[in-house]
Amino acid sequence: MKKDTLTWELLAEFAGTCILILFGVGVVAQVVTGNGAQGDHDSIAWAWGLGVTLGVYVSARISGAHLNPAVTVALATFQGFSWKKVLPYSLAQTAGAFVAAIIVRFTYADLINSIDPGHTFKSQGIFSTLPGTHVTMTTAFFDQIVGTAILVFVIFALTNARNNPPLSNLGPLLVGLLVVAIGMAWGANAGYAINPARDFGPRLASWITGYSTAMKEPGGNYYFWLPIVAPLIGGVVGGGLFKLLIDRGLDVVHDEPEQEAAGEPLPNQ
Amino acid sequence: MKKDTLTWELLAEFAGTCILILFGVGVVAQVVTGNGAQGDHDSIAWAWGLGVTLGVYVSARISGAHLNPAVTVALATFQGFSWKKVLPYSLAQTAGAFVAAIIVRFTYADLINSIDPGHTFKSQGIFSTLPGTHVTMTTAFFDQIVGTAILVFVIFALTNARNNPPLSNLGPLLVGLLVVAIGMAWGANAGYAINPARDFGPRLASWITGYSTAMKEPGGNYYFWLPIVAPLIGGVVGGGLFKLLIDRGLDVVHDEPEQEAAGEPLPNQ
Amino acid sequence: MKKDTLTWELLAEFAGTCILILFGVGVVAQVVTGNGAQGDHDSIAWAWGLGVTLGVYVSARISGAHLNPAVTVALATFQGFSWKKVLPYSLAQTAGAFVAAIIVRFTYADLINSIDPGHTFKSQGIFSTLPGTHVTMTTAFFDQIVGTAILVFVIFALTNARNNPPLSNLGPLLVGLLVVAIGMAWGANAGYAINPARDFGPRLASWITGYSTAMKEPGGNYYFWLPIVAPLIGGVVGGGLFKLLIDRGLDVVHDEPEQEAAGEPLPNQ
Amino acid sequence: MKKDTLTWELLAEFAGTCILILFGVGVVAQVVTGNGAQGDHDSIAWAWGLGVTLGVYVSARISGAHLNPAVTVALATFQGFSWKKVLPYSLAQTAGAFVAAIIVRFTYADLINSIDPGHTFKSQGIFSTLPGTHVTMTTAFFDQIVGTAILVFVIFALTNARNNPPLSNLGPLLVGLLVVAIGMAWGANAGYAINPARDFGPRLASWITGYSTAMKEPGGNYYFWLPIVAPLIGGVVGGGLFKLLIDRGLDVVHDEPEQEAAGEPLPNQ
Repeated sequence: MKKDTLTWELLAEFAGTCILILFGVGVVAQVVTGNGAQGDHDSIAWAWGLGVTLGVYVSARISGAHLNPAVTVALATFQGFSWKKVLPYSLAQTAGAFVAAIIVRFTYADLINSIDPGHTFKSQGIFSTLPGTHVTMTTAFFDQIVGTAILVFVIFALTNARNNPPLSNLGPLLVGLLVVAIGMAWGANAGYAINPARDFGPRLASWITGYSTAMKEPGGNYYFWLPIVAPLIGGVVGGGLFKLLIDRGLDVVHDEPEQEAAGEPLPNQ
Repeated sequence: MKKDTLTWELLAEFAGTCILILFGVGVVAQVVTGNGAQGDHDSIAWAWGLGVTLGVYVSARISGAHLNPAVTVALATFQGFSWKKVLPYSLAQTAGAFVAAIIVRFTYADLINSIDPGHTFKSQGIFSTLPGTHVTMTTAFFDQIVGTAILVFVIFALTNARNNPPLSNLGPLLVGLLVVAIGMAWGANAGYAINPARDFGPRLASWITGYSTAMKEPGGNYYFWLPIVAPLIGGVVGGGLFKLLIDRGLDVVHDEPEQEAAGEPLPNQ
Repeated sequence: MKKDTLTWELLAEFAGTCILILFGVGVVAQVVTGNGAQGDHDSIAWAWGLGVTLGVYVSARISGAHLNPAVTVALATFQGFSWKKVLPYSLAQTAGAFVAAIIVRFTYADLINSIDPGHTFKSQGIFSTLPGTHVTMTTAFFDQIVGTAILVFVIFALTNARNNPPLSNLGPLLVGLLVVAIGMAWGANAGYAINPARDFGPRLASWITGYSTAMKEPGGNYYFWLPIVAPLIGGVVGGGLFKLLIDRGLDVVHDEPEQEAAGEPLPNQ
Repeated sequence: MKKDTLTWELLAEFAGTCILILFGVGVVAQVVTGNGAQGDHDSIAWAWGLGVTLGVYVSARISGAHLNPAVTVALATFQGFSWKKVLPYSLAQTAGAFVAAIIVRFTYADLINSIDPGHTFKSQGIFSTLPGTHVTMTTAFFDQIVGTAILVFVIFALTNARNNPPLSNLGPLLVGLLVVAIGMAWGANAGYAINPARDFGPRLASWITGYSTAMKEPGGNYYFWLPIVAPLIGGVVGGGLFKLLIDRGLDVVHDEPEQEAAGEPLPNQ
């Protein structure tokens, strides 16, 4: 009963993305409303990354734990994931992100009102990303391609059985640490959305609960489309570069007679 | 001899919760008395989480390492844990938390006296949780339901053998990282008790050692009951949502012929 | 040739403790001379803990990686480690700590001179521990017993094969995280020496390189003996409590017929 | 076809070092341009270390994941890695670092211009290392020998199958944590290059994109050679010390009859 399986896959994507966003949007709410006393930029990087790890453990057995339309599209392009499932998966992910953001929105309502009763850009960043001050739209677009390309390139490396990935089912921990590092190194230009569902679901949640400028950036231009489009491109770029630089090499190394294979997991005696 | 086993289970719950609170209440004592020079909010999140990991390793073999009445009740409700053991386990956990808090209370007495000789709310937060400034009791209650629901939902996901949990007996590390992330993302409204024993044991320890307002919040209302009642509800909510969203899906996926099962641990080639 | 083995064990203890102190004393040198720009208290906790993890991996295969006379004495008391080796191990550990501290002393000489040319207590804390301001000697002594008892209690739990320890040879990672958490929660009273070699080796290194007050605390009393004596006591206390609270329970649980054993690694379906 | 394998090895070294530097130089760009709001020195330590972990996972299966000419030379000296491959590997590593730094240079151009439009030493540190204020060239040289010796000594310990390394292919995680700890404890004197490719590739990238002083230190002396020469020496020193202190001991311990071998992974019952 393929249809029945799909239903449960979509519920798993929904639940996994919900857990991811409960941590991701939750930590930004805590840091922004805490005025420096409840965490800082590093807490945001850590809790987003750990949220990814935990969301992946929640859903991986049933749905494969994409939790991100940019990952889903890259898997469809390069790894044979069914194109027919791409839209349902993406919608389930976005729905999970939306519901989680609504829960954060209401649980943190007292604290948000205490620092930004008008619901302006001051607290908008809790829910969805914005370009940094001094950062042009072009740079933000390029940044989101680079960030998502790194994400998908390394996910492909960490989950390819031929490439000596982490064992003992600890891949989800490493994928989470990857997102921690992206937050620390690729968060300054555009807030590292690198995930259309992560950005648009919470943006919608804030838009319908009092953030009238949620779809725009402070300069007045529509911005919501950028963290959707650029990550989708970046994911395909990253997946393609993995195929080009590493995956073809795995074919060669695995075809070599054992005694000529140069690669070892790590230098050893 | 079932009775003999129960005695050792209770001792293990006592010891594991004691270790948890020696780190948890210890780190808040260090940060609060250090005036910013001995750690900050992130240290609190890390040491609480690592304390959970270590407390679980101490006790898991003998008692299952609940260390939290909200977890015990959720396991009794959904996983067949004996209801007869719920109260003894909860008391052993609270006793472990109480003893650990007493040890912190006396070892940190010099430092506590140096910053808060009157033992007011300024240092009360070392031992037990309080609602954040600007946060209503209703919000605090809802926050504790949400936080504990997340805790139990993800614990169920990380410990269900059918759901591809971490192997090599590293589940306790991931459960600790879960608590790190809850501290970073769900600590602002009500201090993330998410555990009646963690909150009431140390609250009692402070109350009998000079904190006359330990049972109340700064506004004067009794508060001690909230971090007991709300986590118990939240644990059942989280466990139930796991059953609803993921566990039923595991039935379907595991019933499917292998070649139709869509779920894989992670995207792979 | 038992004698030959002992020589290599001592070299391994020397090398492992050297690695530990290269990180431990190194990070304090970096933080203290950096005036807040090169790390803070949390960096100290992390690098000490990671130093433990790495020092254990260096030496565990050959010597068992005690790296700490308090651990060595506790193992001799409770786990059958040969009492004849206790003094040689302790001396090798102290020598490793001494050499590492000398390397830090000279590599950081420029930076130490820039902030404390007189080599006073201002930079003494790079090398050895001192009681915190407002902390009495009695409190510091008790604190070192508590901190080392926690250390040895949890090490016993993490390395007892019957108690479901971490597998895949990841125990050293968890032992390091234990020390991270001790640094965050039990560092305020007396700087968490919890290891006579860690404290006395670097203290000696600073004393012979210009720190004339290295053996005393700011009040003028001799202090060097406290982080030697109290940890040795604390280690035995912690090991004994593990025997009392957990180890006897493991006997009972392992004697029970399988179907009556209550303990499971983690709650499971 | 040995030649074909080498090509793919070089591509893997290129890709792995590129990932490493995308995180490493990326995080410094974020922290330096963020003026304290986008991370601090600890973020730099964490993201560099995690970048190492992820770069190793990307390339280890095909090339062994050296990612660092100092590691390559040490492996050729002590572990039988082919000397003929040392130069090609080093060039591929440097090319990967160069390309990654170019990507950071352009993605962060808006933010760099906002804080340092003249491209002076103020933002030069994003790309390549400099001696700390008050630190002499001699100290910086010695510091780089020490730091790289620690790196290679511990890498040898973590990857020697006879020395009980971490299993489940988690060595790359531990190697990354090693670099985190080096950043926290050995970063103050000379910015912990400990890798000629990491330093010279990005230095070249900044030099050809507007940083006219990139090859010098603020005093006006050429500096680029120091983080090339000293790490190459340090790697050989570290590898040699491992042979001397641990590796010979492994021979003895492994030759002993089992019942006389003193070494155990960790104290156990």
